[in-house]
Amino acid sequence: MGKDLRFDGERLSSRLARLGQVGAIPGGGVSRLALTDADKAGRDLVVGWMRELGLAVTVDGIGNAVGLRRGSEDGPPVMTGSHIDTVRTGGRYDGNLGVLAGLEVVAALNDAGVTTRRPLAVAFFTNEEGSRFQPDMMGSLVYVGRLPLEKALATVGIDGTSVKDNLARIGYAGAGPTAGSPEVHAYVELHIEQGPVLDAEKYTIGAVEGVQGISWTEFTITGQANHAGTTPMGMRHDAGLVAAEIATFARRLANEVGGHQVATVGSLTLSPNLVNVVAQQAVLTVDLRNTDERVLEEAESRLFAFADRAAAAEGVGVARRALARFQPVAFAPELVARVEAIAGELGYRVRRLPSGAGHDAQMLASICPACMIFVPSARGVSHNVEEFTSPADLEAGGKVLLRLLCELAG
Amino acid sequence: MGKDLRFDGERLSSRLARLGQVGAIPGGGVSRLALTDADKAGRDLVVGWMRELGLAVTVDGIGNAVGLRRGSEDGPPVMTGSHIDTVRTGGRYDGNLGVLAGLEVVAALNDAGVTTRRPLAVAFFTNEEGSRFQPDMMGSLVYVGRLPLEKALATVGIDGTSVKDNLARIGYAGAGPTAGSPEVHAYVELHIEQGPVLDAEKYTIGAVEGVQGISWTEFTITGQANHAGTTPMGMRHDAGLVAAEIATFARRLANEVGGHQVATVGSLTLSPNLVNVVAQQAVLTVDLRNTDERVLEEAESRLFAFADRAAAAEGVGVARRALARFQPVAFAPELVARVEAIAGELGYRVRRLPSGAGHDAQMLASICPACMIFVPSARGVSHNVEEFTSPADLEAGGKVLLRLLCELAG
Repeated sequence: MGKDLRFDGERLSSRLARLGQVGAIPGGGVSRLALTDADKAGRDLVVGWMRELGLAVTVDGIGNAVGLRRGSEDGPPVMTGSHIDTVRTGGRYDGNLGVLAGLEVVAALNDAGVTTRRPLAVAFFTNEEGSRFQPDMMGSLVYVGRLPLEKALATVGIDGTSVKDNLARIGYAGAGPTAGSPEVHAYVELHIEQGPVLDAEKYTIGAVEGVQGISWTEFTITGQANHAGTTPMGMRHDAGLVAAEIATFARRLANEVGGHQVATVGSLTLSPNLVNVVAQQAVLTVDLRNTDERVLEEAESRLFAFADRAAAAEGVGVARRALARFQPVAFAPELVARVEAIAGELGYRVRRLPSGAGHDAQMLASICPACMIFVPSARGVSHNVEEFTSPADLEAGGKVLLRLLCELAG
Repeated sequence: MGKDLRFDGERLSSRLARLGQVGAIPGGGVSRLALTDADKAGRDLVVGWMRELGLAVTVDGIGNAVGLRRGSEDGPPVMTGSHIDTVRTGGRYDGNLGVLAGLEVVAALNDAGVTTRRPLAVAFFTNEEGSRFQPDMMGSLVYVGRLPLEKALATVGIDGTSVKDNLARIGYAGAGPTAGSPEVHAYVELHIEQGPVLDAEKYTIGAVEGVQGISWTEFTITGQANHAGTTPMGMRHDAGLVAAEIATFARRLANEVGGHQVATVGSLTLSPNLVNVVAQQAVLTVDLRNTDERVLEEAESRLFAFADRAAAAEGVGVARRALARFQPVAFAPELVARVEAIAGELGYRVRRLPSGAGHDAQMLASICPACMIFVPSARGVSHNVEEFTSPADLEAGGKVLLRLLCELAG
């Protein structure tokens, strides 16, 4: 089974384009922040497609929608999916691809008149992006029981309104099964890479080994504002200098640790931020990520020790605050191996890689075997109207997804 | 002559306190931006004192006020002075000290019934601070003929009104001698250091050798915004990293050049300035100062070369723009030596040092022998309501000023 099934890449591209018209913004992008009117319109379109394909759609208390296709046996379904909310100026592939490719898998099975042994489910999870309500991956967090439903519903967003009120307003405060069900046999998510590796190295498929652990630290450095002309170098307590030293150390640290280690100082603010005044205060963030928790901890220790030393040398204070900390997630090795093998059998260049971004799959991984399939993002661009994946790559990803879901559903 | 004259430090402190009440702000500070109502009130008070002391006050076209005390001979006067405008949240010493100490010198001569050979003048120059109208040192620039009067008058300030209209409004659009006159025989300015050196090293008097040359460069670094999680280190074009490297290099450069070289990165702005996005752009300023023009040029060359190398290594673009460039000003060596000698004779600890800030004296230095006398600023704090110089140090500076002016006036 599976080899005779036909994945319709053209229809997938067409559905992506149609969904991309909902909340369209100039430049080919999409703005569908979670639980806005645009999100409702996108949800309605996708739920309509689910029903056209004969799926039984349920919506749970946090607004996750699951379309179920019966199997010849009962029991937990094999699930695929992703999210359809976007960042404020997003592209049409991020999230949407995984959901709509799932629908094409269902369509392929329908067209071939195949009934799998296990049920098959296509889901979209609420507020994966976290652009309007924090935390991100909210729907899948609730689904797997790691965030209480009531707490999620009480979340107030950037516009001062709650998740609960917005779900009610758009008609997606579901009466479906309690969060945490249905149980899932296995979860596979197709997603764009959102990074440059596959595109730069001419791979078509990424077999995602896991999601990098994330450590976000904010450093607040407190020095002394002084006149840039009258204060000799030896009498300075320059908060900006120490911030710059930490930023250059972060790069050195990443290079020394090597492997998949990344380190980023994306935010750095000086005050008073004037040409001729030594900075009194500097606030900067360091984003460290690694697939190995032990290595990530070691990188944190070295960073913190460096910051302390640099601050002491300049006679400034340094305080740090953890903004976020997630342990790495490893996907099920047997599924990662199957992604790699299937891609190879289909003639696609495939490589293993970690995901540097967070995905719903990492939440599902805590309740069932899970994995992800990546397809290339042109120039690594994502969360941007210029996000692009070629139709051929979309279809390749869909074909790998189809084969793997069929294997898992039996 | 001179040794029997009595400089009244108590009255100086009292006048500073009274002038400090004009435009007073909480914390003991002063806000008298140039050509505001507060500035007018301060001017009226000081001009009144000048007249009480028998000085003939003239106001020129840019609003500089000069109070002239006759000598036994005609000819160019020996001049002292400074400015009485302040920054928005300034102290009561910056500028005011030099003007009011000049009045006490006149009072000492009056009390002793002494007539000097040359005339003596006490001046305050318009808009030294540049907080409301650019450029700073406007009045003295016009006075020495380096800024055309009409151009200065046409300057529009931060509130959208012109120098000309404000001078007329407060009644200081003078009919006095054309800017550039009277000619000056020599100029001596007493000022607070506005830096930490004298205070930290327990000196009472600074013999100011000159004013540091200033080089302000703005670097705009253009890289590529990328996801902090999905972009491997080797594929980054991180504008923020290169900015940080330039900032740490600036410190290293200052240390290597040594002497009076200072280097400051006081302003650094990243965009989009987000925790998890590699910075697409960084804009930073580097403020370099040195008393030696050749050394300053060499420091600039090394900085620019480093920035180019760092940008090339990271694959980012770098553009630079000169925000300001002033050559160093050397004060008349014979006057610097006299400041040092007189301070020593009076029993004060004295050291030579450069001025890291700009002063009216550097403009006067282009038309006559000029020098400055510094007294300590507590903890180096200036342009701040906490600006403070002890009454004893104020009096010491006044005594050195009195002695030197008497020598020069003969």
